Amino acid sequence: MTGDAPEAPPRRSHGRISISATARPRDLMEEPLVAKGAWRAKIITLFPDAFPGTLGLSLTGKAMDMGLWALDPIDLRPFGEGKHRNVDDTPAGGGAGMVLRADVVDRALRQAAIGTPKDRARWPVLYLSPRGKPFDQATARRWAAAEGITLLCGRFEGVDQRVLDQWEIEEVSLGDFVLTGGEIAAQAMIDATVRLIPGVLGNHASTEEESFSDGLLEHPQFTRPAVWEGREIPPVLMSGNHGEIAKWRRAEALRLTEARRPDLIAAATAKKP
Amino acid sequence: MTGDAPEAPPRRSHGRISISATARPRDLMEEPLVAKGAWRAKIITLFPDAFPGTLGLSLTGKAMDMGLWALDPIDLRPFGEGKHRNVDDTPAGGGAGMVLRADVVDRALRQAAIGTPKDRARWPVLYLSPRGKPFDQATARRWAAAEGITLLCGRFEGVDQRVLDQWEIEEVSLGDFVLTGGEIAAQAMIDATVRLIPGVLGNHASTEEESFSDGLLEHPQFTRPAVWEGREIPPVLMSGNHGEIAKWRRAEALRLTEARRPDLIAAATAKKP
Repeated sequence: MTGDAPEAPPRRSHGRISISATARPRDLMEEPLVAKGAWRAKIITLFPDAFPGTLGLSLTGKAMDMGLWALDPIDLRPFGEGKHRNVDDTPAGGGAGMVLRADVVDRALRQAAIGTPKDRARWPVLYLSPRGKPFDQATARRWAAAEGITLLCGRFEGVDQRVLDQWEIEEVSLGDFVLTGGEIAAQAMIDATVRLIPGVLGNHASTEEESFSDGLLEHPQFTRPAVWEGREIPPVLMSGNHGEIAKWRRAEALRLTEARRPDLIAAATAKKP
Repeated sequence: MTGDAPEAPPRRSHGRISISATARPRDLMEEPLVAKGAWRAKIITLFPDAFPGTLGLSLTGKAMDMGLWALDPIDLRPFGEGKHRNVDDTPAGGGAGMVLRADVVDRALRQAAIGTPKDRARWPVLYLSPRGKPFDQATARRWAAAEGITLLCGRFEGVDQRVLDQWEIEEVSLGDFVLTGGEIAAQAMIDATVRLIPGVLGNHASTEEESFSDGLLEHPQFTRPAVWEGREIPPVLMSGNHGEIAKWRRAEALRLTEARRPDLIAAATAKKP
């Protein structure tokens, strides 16, 4: 497996297979077989087997197979200390759980940084933590517009603060809840981001008409049969009058958002002309 | 594989294996091999292969193997219409994407309801949607205190509103962003919930000292080495003075929360005596 790399890598990626089936260390690999310039997520994790996981299925999986984006799980374990490759130690000052070591995480971050731009606008470097800024649709749009991202997945009680400071890592949170680790959070954020990359959704869905695209929750949806269990589809939706349908949907979106998420209304009305 | 089921199922579950390796339809299965009364998540999905996914690894996976909780993916496809088992149709009134049919989802919900209590406090029935109430640590605590949950994973543009109304389904959102489907959101919510079930975390970590347990973000963490890249661990953490350490951590938690999440401060101070 030395030399003889094709001059121009084929446009079609080997996707999941190239990620999980290779026994070669990542730093010895040639140019990966994905489209040059394809969006890429590097994930530092103690559970590389968690990837691609659900991201390998459905639209995100198809887009990965097409080379529209790529996933690089980086196993944290080989960067550990000593014979047992320890990655963590007890918290300074006491307390439950274990903390990922600054030196170990630093070595993994150096590995991940190879071949990525230093400009964080072009390549955000992130730590997944409930202490971070809440991830939202605007964050997904920002990341989708970058060339790729590096995600550090936490486990246990957290990561030594010094390596977060040294690398000026952006902390980002999936929400106001605690997970056993960052791996599922990484998948959620990557899913939300990848589906905004041009070509990924195809004509399966529109990113224009959905929740948060205009700051409101989405209106209710209906489909056949026209009557089910005595419940009818609202007649306006069956009228064929596109103006009335749009008006009804906008009113329903507003009604739902007012009822469920009044916090979104102020922001939405401020944005509208 | 007929009859001869053990009178008393063994306490140790077959966990992941029992879920993915069986070719028998779920409704013909005998008593599943998990602890009687173990917390259970039933998941209606078009991608049953997405489960257990990351939930099968690490602490949640070990707890599943120990029979502390169980996962029942329910494939939506067999409940579809006609030869091709269609589960969706175009939105009434037009628009992009496809909508899951009320009758199809209803049949899957009936299947999931078998053997579960009707009282929604004992068994919440949920639809994962960005239109729902945001999932948070309090939701995770409520679900962990129930006997189990049923989660309906959306795909495409959504689900016919009538089946949500008919079943009085609680809509819940992972956050203010859009995913290609509910499967990753389900995994995140189940992970946050399962780790609160007694015995799951063991002594790996405390749920008392972490973010949101007191309404504040968690203080920074440090571990060996004492000096790294010229950066020291804050001396107070090395002092052995537990009172001073607790005071420092509380102050840091407050400082971080004020800087990053001022919205949490009001709620936290309101709760304190």
